[in-house]
Parts: sequence; C-alpha cells; structure tokens
Amino acid sequence: MPRNATTQPLPGDARRSPPTSALHALSQACLHEQTLRIYFEDTDAGGIVYHASWLRFFERARTDWLRSLGLEQSHLARDHGVGFVVRAMQIGYLRPARLDDLVRTELRLLDLRGASISLAQHALLDDPRTPLVEAQVRVAVMRLSDGRPAPLPPALRERVSAQAATVTPVDQA
Amino acid sequence: MPRNATTQPLPGDARRSPPTSALHALSQACLHEQTLRIYFEDTDAGGIVYHASWLRFFERARTDWLRSLGLEQSHLARDHGVGFVVRAMQIGYLRPARLDDLVRTELRLLDLRGASISLAQHALLDDPRTPLVEAQVRVAVMRLSDGRPAPLPPALRERVSAQAATVTPVDQA
Amino acid sequence: MPRNATTQPLPGDARRSPPTSALHALSQACLHEQTLRIYFEDTDAGGIVYHASWLRFFERARTDWLRSLGLEQSHLARDHGVGFVVRAMQIGYLRPARLDDLVRTELRLLDLRGASISLAQHALLDDPRTPLVEAQVRVAVMRLSDGRPAPLPPALRERVSAQAATVTPVDQA
Amino acid sequence: MPRNATTQPLPGDARRSPPTSALHALSQACLHEQTLRIYFEDTDAGGIVYHASWLRFFERARTDWLRSLGLEQSHLARDHGVGFVVRAMQIGYLRPARLDDLVRTELRLLDLRGASISLAQHALLDDPRTPLVEAQVRVAVMRLSDGRPAPLPPALRERVSAQAATVTPVDQA
Repeated sequence: MPRNATTQPLPGDARRSPPTSALHALSQACLHEQTLRIYFEDTDAGGIVYHASWLRFFERARTDWLRSLGLEQSHLARDHGVGFVVRAMQIGYLRPARLDDLVRTELRLLDLRGASISLAQHALLDDPRTPLVEAQVRVAVMRLSDGRPAPLPPALRERVSAQAATVTPVDQA
Repeated sequence: MPRNATTQPLPGDARRSPPTSALHALSQACLHEQTLRIYFEDTDAGGIVYHASWLRFFERARTDWLRSLGLEQSHLARDHGVGFVVRAMQIGYLRPARLDDLVRTELRLLDLRGASISLAQHALLDDPRTPLVEAQVRVAVMRLSDGRPAPLPPALRERVSAQAATVTPVDQA
Repeated sequence: MPRNATTQPLPGDARRSPPTSALHALSQACLHEQTLRIYFEDTDAGGIVYHASWLRFFERARTDWLRSLGLEQSHLARDHGVGFVVRAMQIGYLRPARLDDLVRTELRLLDLRGASISLAQHALLDDPRTPLVEAQVRVAVMRLSDGRPAPLPPALRERVSAQAATVTPVDQA
Repeated sequence: MPRNATTQPLPGDARRSPPTSALHALSQACLHEQTLRIYFEDTDAGGIVYHASWLRFFERARTDWLRSLGLEQSHLARDHGVGFVVRAMQIGYLRPARLDDLVRTELRLLDLRGASISLAQHALLDDPRTPLVEAQVRVAVMRLSDGRPAPLPPALRERVSAQAATVTPVDQA
C-alpha cells in the first residue's frame, strides 16, 4: 500500500482534526488477521473477484475482530439497541484475485473517536506476497430505533484501546 | 454531495495532474440516470441496504450508461479482448435506504484519460429529495489475456466526449 | 417446462392433498411477467449467471407481483407484523444465461392455501425463445415477533384469487 | 430431514432409473462437514439468512469437499477444460438462521453417474441440534468451450467412489 494512501482523508473528514500521532502509530500494528478462500460466489464473468465482494470480506474481518474482543453485533443490537454502519470507505484495487485463491486480510486501527472508528484493511496473497486491495473504512454507531448516531459502546472503546496499546510495541520492534 | 468530496483525490491519484477545468465542468452534467427498486436481496439484518449493494447499483448504472452509448461489455470482451475494472473508489454513506424504496442514481464524468475514466455516482431518494450515497469511481481497461492495462477503446473515448460536450451547456444554463 | 416438473411435490408436501383441478388450471395463466438484464454482479467465473442469482431474480418477480396487487412487503411487516418466507423450492437449470442477456421471468399460481402460496416461476430468453430456468416455490407467512407461521393476509388471498380468476380464461382461449 | 425428502426425484430425473441400493447406502455417510459463520452479507431485512445465501453455503461445501479430494475447480478448468454446473436442486427451509450463528453443513452422496453427481446437503445449528435447511443437488460437468455436457473426470469418479466406500461402514456401525 502506498504510504500516502493511509493519510488521505475519508469523505466527510475534511473539517476534522487529523489523527493524533499516538493513533497514527497504532495504525502500524495489525490487530486482526484472517484467511479466506475465493469461491464462485465471489467472482464474476471477468474471471476475477467481483469488486463489491471485497467489501464483504472486509466486513467479515471487522465482525470477527469485534467478536475476538468479546463484542458480538447481534448482542450489541439486543442489549444496547445499537448497530454499526459504514459511513465512508476509500478502496484501491491493485491486483485481482481468482477462484480458489487463499487471501489474507489485515486490519489496523487508524483512528478511534467518540462516535466512530477508522480502520485500514488490506487484502493480500501470501505466496508470493502480493497486495491485492487496500481500504480505509470509517465505521460509526447508529441507534436502531431511529437511525440516529450514537456514541461507541464504552466496552468497545476500552477493548480496542487496550488491544492497540498491547500490540503496537511488538510491531514497531 | 458536499463540494469538497468531488475534489478529493482517489487512491493512487496523488501524483497525477488535477482534472482540467473543462473536465471539471463536465462533472456538473448528469450523463445517465436510472431508477431501481430495493429488494430483500439488497438489504441486511440491520434493516437497511447492505453497504456493498451500492457498488452493485453503481455498476449497473455504469453498464447501462455504456450500453446507451452503444458499448456492450460482452462485445468489448469478444471483439477487443478487453474489460473494465474498478481501480479505485471513494464512497460516502449519508443515509440508509430500505426495502421497497425507489432509488435514483446519477452519473457524472469527472475525468477522461487515455487509460481510465473517473466518474461521480450519486444515489438519492426522490420524494423528498434525499442524498443517500455518493461515490467517485476510477475505472480502467484491462487486457483479458494477461490482465495488463490497456488503452480505452477509441469508440468509448469519442462517444463519452461527444456526450459530455452535448449535455454540459444544458446543465450550466 | 416438462409437464412432469409441475406435478412433482415440493419437499414437505408429501402428506398434503394434491392441488385441485381448478388450481391446476390456474397454473396455466401467467400472472406476472418481468424483464431483467444480466450484470456482472449476477455472473461468476464460469462466465455464466451464478446459480443462486436466479433465486434473487425470482424473488424480485414475486415482490413486484405482490406490489402490482397492492401489497408491499414493508407495509405488511409494519401494519400486520408478518413477512413472507420461502419454505421450499425446486429448481431446474436448463441453459445458462450470460452477461448483457435480457431475461424474461414468468410467474404462475400453482396452489393457494390458508398459509402458503405455491408458484411456478420460469426464466427464458426471448429471441430465440429459450427456457433457461424453471422453479416451483412455496412461500408462507411468518409472524415477525416470534417466527411462527401465520395465515396469509386476507387481502392477499382475495386479490390473488381475483387475479387468477380473471386471467385464466384468456390464457386458455 | 424427513426420510421421504431423500427419495424424491430431482427435476428432470423422472425417466432415470432409481439409484442403486449400494448408492442409497452411501447417502447415509457424511462425506464432508464444514462450519460457517453468518455475517451481515448473508442476512436480509427480515432479520434472517436470505434464502439464496444457503445456495452459496452449499456450494462452498461442495467446492471444499472436491478440494479435499484433490480436485480444484480452477485446475479442472485449466487442465481439462471442464467446469461443474448445478443442474437441479430441491431445497427445504425448516428454520431460519440469524446473524452471528454458527452453522454446520453436511454433505452426503446420493448418486454417482457417468455425467452427474447427486448430493444431499444439510445445514444445522449445533446446540441444540436443529436442522435448518436441507437440499438435494444434482451437479453435472460442462465443457467450457461450448457449454456441452461432458463426462465426469475419471479422477473425480475414482476418488468419490473410494471415499464413499471408506466412510460408509463407519457410519452404518
């Protein structure tokens, strides 16, 4: 992923302050990794993975990352009446993937605010190591009753911060 | 769509020259409009349109726009051995759509280069007029035999330029 | 569609009485017709329409048929607390469809009971007339609060019966 | 799954001879098992797994089963110029699954002929053990150059037969 890609603003971010340097540092640490297989359902008649399928893969990764932190989205809905929605995404398609490929996704934290999380999510082939798709995603929380914005659940903020604090030094070594 | 959104670079555009003012002007004219219905297949358990479904809707619009210019993608593949691929996309989700909604998509030209087209694509509800999703998409042409970049077919460049030249004055009036 | 296909039981139908001859007659009349375009989203790396995409097409047809009878599923959910679910489907894939094809779907009534409707749905190419996919679908109504079966809304039974009574003689002429 | 479901003919099977008793016995043995998670992409606005998503799940299972036998579909296409297509499917929806559910799929052999395989595929929740969806699928082989039927690759016939022969006694014990 070209370095500049991680510093471009997401749509709607223009008037926001830039991420703090502490958070920028966090973005170097991979918080979640996942491997997935490419099936027919993911491809199109061009013989490659359909461009919208990558959004499904990245959401699987976000969901499993939250689950690894003890946060199931169906519980958040039931217990707190909130759900996550994607607010903005910037995505670059570098190389195609094909049927039967094994693809690895990586998730990094770009920014953690009161009502949104920004993540960098990459997809790559392992052998040889080939970047395929890179994305930045801003996810926010919505009150399910009326669709209004809601603050992030405190448990999420705490666990994400704790995880980011833990993994960063390892990655920077 | 906030004005700033149309001037943010797409991933990978950093070292490219900005669109000329002529092309910027083109972006004001809507080149293709389409109405689509929201079905169960498009929604998710949050009760709203799944975020990746919008990429499908925008691709339907691009495909039908090209078809309206006499360019069928299956013919391009057969006769010229090339296909379109999305290289980059920036997408902002402003408001959700729901089952049974009628959604209108609009397509505008942002930039036309030797090997890529950049488009602005918006989705909105009509009554009351409500912007839902806004995207910028850079599409390039790929040689199907080896996945290498290829120049845009001359017929496409000519017809897009001709259409853009025709509709602009109307829109600026 | 081979005649025997319409008389095979759907899974779970084994102990039910066969459709009455009146209802069998209804199945000859096409109650809803729709044309749709094949886009990249519908295809797979085999170069043909992905087999699960046909279920999406058939559901679009059912939804628009109900809408043509004045029954919007989002209203049924809001006003009556019920939703439709597919209980059983039998589907035969005769010939593939490809990118850019125009496909016509036809919907016929096979059976109308207190808590379910059975439909025959066909997809075909027009020129030359080529059957592509044929399905029989049994749809039932579910109470959204607890997922329990519910009777069909009376308005639906009335309007479907009325429509079937109207179109049959035309088709048999 | 009701016992009768496994003995109903698939569409188009009417004039074929019934499976031999040896093959019927095979259908009792589970040849492949897989667990998958339900994500937002799999659900619809009814709050449950969208009915067409189950076809995607069953195809993942078939693909991974073939892979476990050393048969990758992308290799079959490249080396033998053939691909699998679904010819017929019969599917019963018993109970819905929801976001975050862990679903297990099971695959059994119903019939193995010169040009097609028929499989029984079930999906269930584990705890408590709840059958969700049951399907019978007939898969055939197509020559990619012209879409004509082709015999099953000999390697596939051999490995499927060998696996079925191995697992049956265990399952019947």
